[in-house]
Amino acid sequence: MLGNFSYHNPTKLYFGEDSLNYLKDEFKNYGENVLLIYGGGSIKKSGLYDEITAILKDSGKNVAELSGVMPNPTLEKLYEGIKIARENNSELILAVGGGSVCDYAKAVSVSVNCDDDPWQKYYIRFEEPDCKIIPVGCVLTMAGTGSEMNGGAVITNHETKLKIGHVFGDEVMPKFSILNPKYTMTLPKYQMAAGIYDIMNHICEQYFSGEDDNTSDYISEALMKSLIHASRIANKNPQDYEARSNIMWTATWALNTLVAKGKTTDWMVHMLGQAVGAYTDATHGMTLAAVSLPYYRFIMPYGLKKFVRFATEVWNVNPDGKTDEQIAEEGLAAMENWMKELELVMKISELGATDEMIDGIADGTLIMDGGYKVLTRDEIVQILKESM
Amino acid sequence: MLGNFSYHNPTKLYFGEDSLNYLKDEFKNYGENVLLIYGGGSIKKSGLYDEITAILKDSGKNVAELSGVMPNPTLEKLYEGIKIARENNSELILAVGGGSVCDYAKAVSVSVNCDDDPWQKYYIRFEEPDCKIIPVGCVLTMAGTGSEMNGGAVITNHETKLKIGHVFGDEVMPKFSILNPKYTMTLPKYQMAAGIYDIMNHICEQYFSGEDDNTSDYISEALMKSLIHASRIANKNPQDYEARSNIMWTATWALNTLVAKGKTTDWMVHMLGQAVGAYTDATHGMTLAAVSLPYYRFIMPYGLKKFVRFATEVWNVNPDGKTDEQIAEEGLAAMENWMKELELVMKISELGATDEMIDGIADGTLIMDGGYKVLTRDEIVQILKESM
Repeated sequence: MLGNFSYHNPTKLYFGEDSLNYLKDEFKNYGENVLLIYGGGSIKKSGLYDEITAILKDSGKNVAELSGVMPNPTLEKLYEGIKIARENNSELILAVGGGSVCDYAKAVSVSVNCDDDPWQKYYIRFEEPDCKIIPVGCVLTMAGTGSEMNGGAVITNHETKLKIGHVFGDEVMPKFSILNPKYTMTLPKYQMAAGIYDIMNHICEQYFSGEDDNTSDYISEALMKSLIHASRIANKNPQDYEARSNIMWTATWALNTLVAKGKTTDWMVHMLGQAVGAYTDATHGMTLAAVSLPYYRFIMPYGLKKFVRFATEVWNVNPDGKTDEQIAEEGLAAMENWMKELELVMKISELGATDEMIDGIADGTLIMDGGYKVLTRDEIVQILKESM
Repeated sequence: MLGNFSYHNPTKLYFGEDSLNYLKDEFKNYGENVLLIYGGGSIKKSGLYDEITAILKDSGKNVAELSGVMPNPTLEKLYEGIKIARENNSELILAVGGGSVCDYAKAVSVSVNCDDDPWQKYYIRFEEPDCKIIPVGCVLTMAGTGSEMNGGAVITNHETKLKIGHVFGDEVMPKFSILNPKYTMTLPKYQMAAGIYDIMNHICEQYFSGEDDNTSDYISEALMKSLIHASRIANKNPQDYEARSNIMWTATWALNTLVAKGKTTDWMVHMLGQAVGAYTDATHGMTLAAVSLPYYRFIMPYGLKKFVRFATEVWNVNPDGKTDEQIAEEGLAAMENWMKELELVMKISELGATDEMIDGIADGTLIMDGGYKVLTRDEIVQILKESM
């Protein structure tokens, strides 16, 4: 049942090959002092950095720069960003990069005008911002996290070995995001595949909860089917613009709150994956891929009906003459095959996890209660061992 | 291909049985002078009028009222609304009712501060508002039009026998909409069915355009499948809250610009139905139902591949051993059966159209060019005759 909820997603999206043309218009809505945030050197190599700094200059902005945002943005880096934003009186944060850069920009945006320590406030006490939030705009160069149209911001604390996400409300969502599928075409295939699995898992985390009849489940199935179809084309030919554009668009809608409406949502795979990430610093999508199947096979008996629906609706498994268990397992096997086609990492040991880390990773795994089975710590250890 | 587009839908939605509780909070964002707009007496009978006026009073608002907004709001009524809004310096228009009341509120909102005649400006010259727009909020009592989260506003000019819709931009979309599925349960079954077909047709008008591979088509199929499923439950038991809530939610997403992204969109069924409506004043959804099948059977050969996909994906037609034409026709036959289950009106003659009106209706039908075949006037006459 859909139940009671509110939906408000004010992010303005510009999509397509010409989408950067709208940046100048958007700049008119914000003050002079812009903090430009990006990751490594890839946007310099691709020429995007030059394009954007030219538009900034042309718009008469004072630009401060902060580079080197890493794939799993750290708390230390967050402190650095807050300091630079304060020093420059930043009035707009422009994030250019993938989901990590967008996440990071949002974490900075809610911390600059707050006196509290952001780790304690947002990632331990999970409070909401009570200070002025600096507006964020994104120019996205990777498809996957959905950070371009949501309030999520994951930060990693290396000292305590915790990688925690805070999903902020609509006031923290980017004011605008520029989505040009061409930018995603320069990524290595490993990153493309990781992004695709991140999208798939976002949908699964919301889909595999509840047993009612809900429009959100139908939309989730549509997004998964479009993603699977497009990913197979992009896997053969990463330069297929149509496939890359559909992947980029499904990423946005997989995690902008829409398909969560009326769902309890699970997020246990993300909790496991993030705990692995805090220990290994591995690529987010790959940590999810490596723990997914052991997790889903473990919870399948508790949500059997939904796994049967997943098999028949998403993977076209023919149910004739089969038990529900067989149908459900065929669905997961079809997903496994697809994951292998994409050459996803299927073991956390390949990401650097060792037997000695299992206990620590289990300790760092937040236990969620929206899915078909609330895990015990022993079950978390078991799933992590099966993921080795 | 998704191509270039922007997406921005700032309407805040409150959904569910408790959604009216948020009205008081929303009122804080607007000025004292509220223009309350509604239709006939149904909201008085249901008690909703009393609830809302109590909240208005409690919020210290000065309330002006405008009632009697008809199912196909007329230009004369629009002039009346503009006059009342001007006299009362209205700062918020609160529309309580179905899509017609929401449409009407938007038409008033863009006209109050404009000197130009709204019919000439918006419905003949299709200009955009260049004057201050009064914010609109909706409390929806019918599911169907999607007006609660879009910029559409259809107005009927009885003098010239034209019913024309203007789809305004995001600045005209309701600032907030309250969607309580319970309110839709007091409707007569005829109105429920008309609303359901309106939703179905909104999706079809966007789906039956283009031949590319597009995430929007997958989402459209999901919405159609959820709608068909829920409509069959609601048809048997109109008091099934879950079914009514899924119908209400699909209505919103069927026409809030999302599934149009990357599509040319057609809207020819709406043009035909609106022309019928201008002559007969019939219920909107029924005018669409009555012209749909003759139209789709006519254009099917021009978009055969998509009609095959519609048959297999939406209606589960088994394609084995059949020609594309047979598969496509089976899909339309399945839709026809579903329409008959819902007891939709399948002939414009049953809505009051006469042979003598055909020429006038054809003249009043705007010809759109986004579908699989641009109709000639002769073809419009032919389709109207087949709809008799």
